[in-house]
Amino acid sequence: MTSYHKPDEKTLQGLKDVANKLRINSIKATCASNSGHPTSCCSAAELMSVLFFNTMRYKADDPRNQCNDRFVLSKGHAAPILYAAWAEAGFVKESELLNLRKVDCDLEGHPTPKLAFVDVATGSLGQGLGAACGMAYTGKHFDKSGYRVYCMMGDGECSEGSVWEAMAFASYYKLDNLVAIMDVNRLGQSEAAPLKHDMETYRKRCEAFGWNTYVVDGHDVEELCKAFWQAQQVKDKPTCIVAKTFKGKGLKNIENLDNWHGKPIPKDRVDDVLKDLQALIQVPNKTLTPKLPKDDTAPADLSVISLPSPPAYKKGEKMATRRAYGVALAKMGEASKRVVALDGDTKNSTFSETFKKAFPDRYIECFIAEQNMVGVAIGCATRDRTVAFASTFAAFFSRAYDQIRMGAISQTNVNLVGSHCGVSIGEDGPSQMALEDLAMFRAIPTCTVFYPSDAVSTERAVELSANTKGICFIRTSRPDTAVLYAPDEKFKVGLAKIVRQSDNDCVTVIGAGITLHEALSAADTLASEGKKIRVIDPFTIKPLDAVTILASARATGGKIITFSDFDSCHKGLAVTGVPHSGKPQEMLDLFGISAKHIAEAVRQTVAN
Amino acid sequence: MTSYHKPDEKTLQGLKDVANKLRINSIKATCASNSGHPTSCCSAAELMSVLFFNTMRYKADDPRNQCNDRFVLSKGHAAPILYAAWAEAGFVKESELLNLRKVDCDLEGHPTPKLAFVDVATGSLGQGLGAACGMAYTGKHFDKSGYRVYCMMGDGECSEGSVWEAMAFASYYKLDNLVAIMDVNRLGQSEAAPLKHDMETYRKRCEAFGWNTYVVDGHDVEELCKAFWQAQQVKDKPTCIVAKTFKGKGLKNIENLDNWHGKPIPKDRVDDVLKDLQALIQVPNKTLTPKLPKDDTAPADLSVISLPSPPAYKKGEKMATRRAYGVALAKMGEASKRVVALDGDTKNSTFSETFKKAFPDRYIECFIAEQNMVGVAIGCATRDRTVAFASTFAAFFSRAYDQIRMGAISQTNVNLVGSHCGVSIGEDGPSQMALEDLAMFRAIPTCTVFYPSDAVSTERAVELSANTKGICFIRTSRPDTAVLYAPDEKFKVGLAKIVRQSDNDCVTVIGAGITLHEALSAADTLASEGKKIRVIDPFTIKPLDAVTILASARATGGKIITFSDFDSCHKGLAVTGVPHSGKPQEMLDLFGISAKHIAEAVRQTVAN
Repeated sequence: MTSYHKPDEKTLQGLKDVANKLRINSIKATCASNSGHPTSCCSAAELMSVLFFNTMRYKADDPRNQCNDRFVLSKGHAAPILYAAWAEAGFVKESELLNLRKVDCDLEGHPTPKLAFVDVATGSLGQGLGAACGMAYTGKHFDKSGYRVYCMMGDGECSEGSVWEAMAFASYYKLDNLVAIMDVNRLGQSEAAPLKHDMETYRKRCEAFGWNTYVVDGHDVEELCKAFWQAQQVKDKPTCIVAKTFKGKGLKNIENLDNWHGKPIPKDRVDDVLKDLQALIQVPNKTLTPKLPKDDTAPADLSVISLPSPPAYKKGEKMATRRAYGVALAKMGEASKRVVALDGDTKNSTFSETFKKAFPDRYIECFIAEQNMVGVAIGCATRDRTVAFASTFAAFFSRAYDQIRMGAISQTNVNLVGSHCGVSIGEDGPSQMALEDLAMFRAIPTCTVFYPSDAVSTERAVELSANTKGICFIRTSRPDTAVLYAPDEKFKVGLAKIVRQSDNDCVTVIGAGITLHEALSAADTLASEGKKIRVIDPFTIKPLDAVTILASARATGGKIITFSDFDSCHKGLAVTGVPHSGKPQEMLDLFGISAKHIAEAVRQTVAN
Repeated sequence: MTSYHKPDEKTLQGLKDVANKLRINSIKATCASNSGHPTSCCSAAELMSVLFFNTMRYKADDPRNQCNDRFVLSKGHAAPILYAAWAEAGFVKESELLNLRKVDCDLEGHPTPKLAFVDVATGSLGQGLGAACGMAYTGKHFDKSGYRVYCMMGDGECSEGSVWEAMAFASYYKLDNLVAIMDVNRLGQSEAAPLKHDMETYRKRCEAFGWNTYVVDGHDVEELCKAFWQAQQVKDKPTCIVAKTFKGKGLKNIENLDNWHGKPIPKDRVDDVLKDLQALIQVPNKTLTPKLPKDDTAPADLSVISLPSPPAYKKGEKMATRRAYGVALAKMGEASKRVVALDGDTKNSTFSETFKKAFPDRYIECFIAEQNMVGVAIGCATRDRTVAFASTFAAFFSRAYDQIRMGAISQTNVNLVGSHCGVSIGEDGPSQMALEDLAMFRAIPTCTVFYPSDAVSTERAVELSANTKGICFIRTSRPDTAVLYAPDEKFKVGLAKIVRQSDNDCVTVIGAGITLHEALSAADTLASEGKKIRVIDPFTIKPLDAVTILASARATGGKIITFSDFDSCHKGLAVTGVPHSGKPQEMLDLFGISAKHIAEAVRQTVAN
């Protein structure tokens, strides 16, 4: 074990100077924008200075280099000090800092990956550590590289349960390349955070969750240098630096006082405040440069990932789409080492287990913590290190909706796969049924929503997801259903399939998943009555293939009916009200979306 | 302090007998339904027996009586043992247990309040304790009554961060009337839970989160009687009973083995299993009856709650709807003591602070833990004890979407108020903007969605919410906007207002919140060009007033345009893509929903 060498006095003074420079630039920027959180920046100034100019190893001119240490600013409202640090490192022009929060400047109110030095967007609190866990897991277990991951949190956000999901995850997987920093500045937005400066309780909680923990003075650069160095020596445990700090540190008559959250320094006081800080700086020039990383990580192979063999099902064969998901994912795992899978203790229901059996080293069990699972998946997918698929019951993605929403702002390419959709899961009852999931994912701006209706299209949905930018959501069903397509059928995002048609169809019926099979069954019934219908499988719900649907509607005299096993804002038959436990077929009947209801709806539409 | 008296041998044997009877009925019911979780029931059998027949005080013939102790089965998949306990207590017919999970029986796969002995639906894990916190807070601080609250959790669900949000909340508020039970049966669904039987780590985590903690043998009825008694003696701390148990306890060749989650006992083994359990029972008749509660809690006053005075604004006056929310809530607090407010450290932004200043004893600060805030609010609203309003930025309700979804199944009447909606919040950037919130709340079956556009209608929305069944969501805006309505204007759920009309309007324009004001501004511009438009304020987005909208559309030649500051599935101008930081007006322009865009859209629509 190497022994610790205290930095020389010049370095220590340099770190103090940088801290105050970061304060000054945070204040100037928020004054220029007349909004923002300078006091939340000031508590973190020494932490940022030491991290960026003593501890972390990165290429300042190439912030997204795969070999760099990662930094996640979970307390995203302290964005101005992050921007100031990158200005100090030379990547951002100092003059640009004054364009903070302007509509034509990417230095936004909270950080987003429009900036090369940001991997995940933050600003909804308590989300950074989950993403950092994904990065650290990837570094240690997939990349097997030396880069380390640092995540800076505020004390207020430690009330978020997602933080403690991540804390449990990191110690369970022995992520000794991960360092969390809690900037305990005591004050939240509207009052003091619940633990105030009770540092020992923070210590106990972190230790109980399995972390190596140091309680430090967050304004003492020497103590910080040592703590971060010690963290590098620890094996098999993540380290938490619990830093006692003061909000607005260094700002006269503002430091440690209430009612200064999210407020720029008033114009009539800012000159005095800046003068005080300037006076503390001994060497105003840049004297410190960041350490460089080891070049031990290969760039990601970004070539298209294809199924190594076509789907191996025969038309008419029965196969649940959730089961086909597992098969497809294992095949994609064979095609590329970048493909990884995550699940939240439902792997034997979602069939991510099939992937785990084939590639145990590329499967991450996230246990029953869906927020963290999505955060970890997003972290794994940063810098294109992996192509991540995370699965659970579709209903339980509602637990992670904030992470998913933020994932869009993070420009993540993560793939989420939700099983047990709709009322057809039956006896388990409404708590396990995904009814809101499509409304939820459709509203996400970057999201592509797949709702495959058979095993063949499920395999193609998985293949397309792996290669589609933005968030992809694949919705799978629990019951076994018939294979509809030949193995060589081609699928595209936004391209619907007409699965039943004739020259004299009287109505267009759209169904997906289980309701498509009910629609086909209704078509048989109706055919025996001499009524032919056109049946459409939309394949993707977003984007929806309006061209095919409208052309079909025109061909059937404008008559169109949709049947959905989710709460829909489109017209048509859909689940309304809270469902109940029952057998799958009973549920379809109860909610009027079974074959017999479809047939009846068609009869009525034709009669009108 | 009273001293503990060990129950006599007959009582102890009776409790053991009840435990095995509960096992037997759980097994029989899940065999009858051919689905369900008997092994998850068996680990909790002694816990349930002692709670229901030694510890808790309740009227077995009136499970929802306001004086009863509360019981929340957070591990909802153990529903059969809950139903068996109520059969043993006499409220449920034993024969009815065999109708478990049938479509015409309310003994569903997971518990819901269709059953009088269930206050909140469970089945999405990790949610029970938050609701239990709300009940305990209400009992201690609002009702000031003696009822106590018991919450049974599984070990697997303790990975959910929401559990630790609730743990922090309960100790912060010294809820000594709350007992959490962790049924640590080691096994999750697809593999062992992360801590397995590491009881000391559970203890450390609970203690670090401020709980009085007992680690016990969960199958020892005597030890359990004592631990629950001790919990009753503790002041100012909630108690956690961490019970070491075995999944499938008592079932030969099933107990403590993998792969028995969610599986009924196979038909060829069930007779043997039942025989073993029967043999353990010494007195098959019912010998134990639950203790009765003190009658120290008054029934809830369910009369309508009205604003004590009409809104006191003048037309044209500028007032942000978020600010009007605070004023309205304080007035409602004056009208009824049942009105309470909760917030997640945003009270100075949402203006729930106005209520707190008027009624500090009826305000609950939930800190930055939105999942728990919603859970607590739902708990507070059970048995109609309170009319709860919980507020935060609308964007952050996405954090609690699973709780909200489950709230609908819980038949909760909770009111959720989200501020800072849409792009008009400006500089803070997309992480703080609510764009998905309306899609999210619209999809909730029991939800009424208010989107008031001025201060007067906001006050009426608050008044209506307090008296409307189901979940109510009120969306408020950050910027100051003009008051549109006279104080005596009448508002109804599902009734839109036509705010501008003439005999020759060329287009119907629908806007809400900030876009309604932009639409009115566009109407002025267009009027100066000789083009008159009809402008509609929908007031509620769900239900939407189709009658008024269609009548207006007919009056304007079928021409209708909607403008929304959320991601919409309706046609019209809406936010698409991920927004950016900027000034509010810039954002409205950038996303094409400002007055000038509305005017231009109208010009084009008229020209076509």
